[in-house]
Amino acid sequence: MNDKQKTAVILLSGGLDSATCLAIAQDQGFACYSLCFDYGQRHRFELEMAKTQAQAAKVLEHKVIKVDLHSIGGSALTADIEVPNAQKPANKKRDKIPVTYVPARNTVFLSLGLSFAEAVGASHIVIGVNQLDYSGYPDCRREFLEAFESMAALATRCGVRGKPVKISAPLIDMTKAEIIKEGMRLEVDYKLTHSCYNPKAEGIACGKCDSCVLRLKGFSEAGLKDPIEYASGS
Amino acid sequence: MNDKQKTAVILLSGGLDSATCLAIAQDQGFACYSLCFDYGQRHRFELEMAKTQAQAAKVLEHKVIKVDLHSIGGSALTADIEVPNAQKPANKKRDKIPVTYVPARNTVFLSLGLSFAEAVGASHIVIGVNQLDYSGYPDCRREFLEAFESMAALATRCGVRGKPVKISAPLIDMTKAEIIKEGMRLEVDYKLTHSCYNPKAEGIACGKCDSCVLRLKGFSEAGLKDPIEYASGS
Repeated sequence: MNDKQKTAVILLSGGLDSATCLAIAQDQGFACYSLCFDYGQRHRFELEMAKTQAQAAKVLEHKVIKVDLHSIGGSALTADIEVPNAQKPANKKRDKIPVTYVPARNTVFLSLGLSFAEAVGASHIVIGVNQLDYSGYPDCRREFLEAFESMAALATRCGVRGKPVKISAPLIDMTKAEIIKEGMRLEVDYKLTHSCYNPKAEGIACGKCDSCVLRLKGFSEAGLKDPIEYASGS
Repeated sequence: MNDKQKTAVILLSGGLDSATCLAIAQDQGFACYSLCFDYGQRHRFELEMAKTQAQAAKVLEHKVIKVDLHSIGGSALTADIEVPNAQKPANKKRDKIPVTYVPARNTVFLSLGLSFAEAVGASHIVIGVNQLDYSGYPDCRREFLEAFESMAALATRCGVRGKPVKISAPLIDMTKAEIIKEGMRLEVDYKLTHSCYNPKAEGIACGKCDSCVLRLKGFSEAGLKDPIEYASGS
């Protein structure tokens, strides 16, 4: 412990989970930078939400990095593949990894987070993944994050000098309901968050995709009403 | 071994090392994709060189991904920091990591390579780093590449399914002279490569930066003449 306030880079997506991460990190005493990726996603409204959240939380700096995952393709979130409803999973046969999986997306995001963290001298990167509600993405598991942290210690100047960047995933073992309860305790304004994979219009969630179904279930289990607008009654 | 030809993604920078990697991979029987990064670098001529090399080698596809490392800064290669001459190293005091180091650059490039490799079903990513002539970059070491490969196996759908992407660094233990000799054997046209950190004009290398000095030393030790143009007699 020293006099200097510890600093963290929060990967802010515009969604509920990362907004809660930002509040948790600030509650833990971190001075926070927020980092958002403009990666060619179809639902660009989330970029606006992330910026609004960052302003509301008074972060040190909100950085948007453009990275053209769209040109790689291979996912329903960036390419022209239909987003399935949660009720009709399109890929039950295939190891339960959904078509909304973007190849190595969290690896790319953490790598850019690492670059930014080293540039600004931050000690931690905070990412809002969780294993329980993770919907089958391999890069949302603790073992992946631990492997990334080990790699990062060898990859960077700060790591070589004995001050490796740490990866923090405060939501990793929490259910969606637990995340929402913790966020409410920390006064996160969930009206400023956006989760839908397939919004009907700006700010109007579909209520049917995997992400909406998880979110609605979380609010329901937490005994709370989701403050955002949905296209169909849910 | 099966009937299907093995495929690799080559990280092609426009420089001498990665051009040699492409020739080595093709010589080893890989069908190759080339991947180049438009990351806000100051010497954009290298992007043209990479494309020309890819065309000459008849790759399956040459992909350029935009990633805005420029907005992160922290390096003489992307930010407004003076590139030092090799004769006057600016940072001898500080662990020998040069100011041209871009924070976590190879981690970012390998991560995007991983995403592309998974999207196209390639089994290998080939990167032209080497430990001997590496100029003090922590992300050019074998231990870093091994850690990246372990992480990648946990990060991806193909890894979870038992077919992790492998990282290949065929130049890792070669001197610049050995790399050049191997490239000449494989008929690499080094006139189509560009290495200078601080070119005086399009295609005219400075002859003084770390990268030029290493390259010229390599050609000299290989007993060959570098076919590219230099601004000052070297």
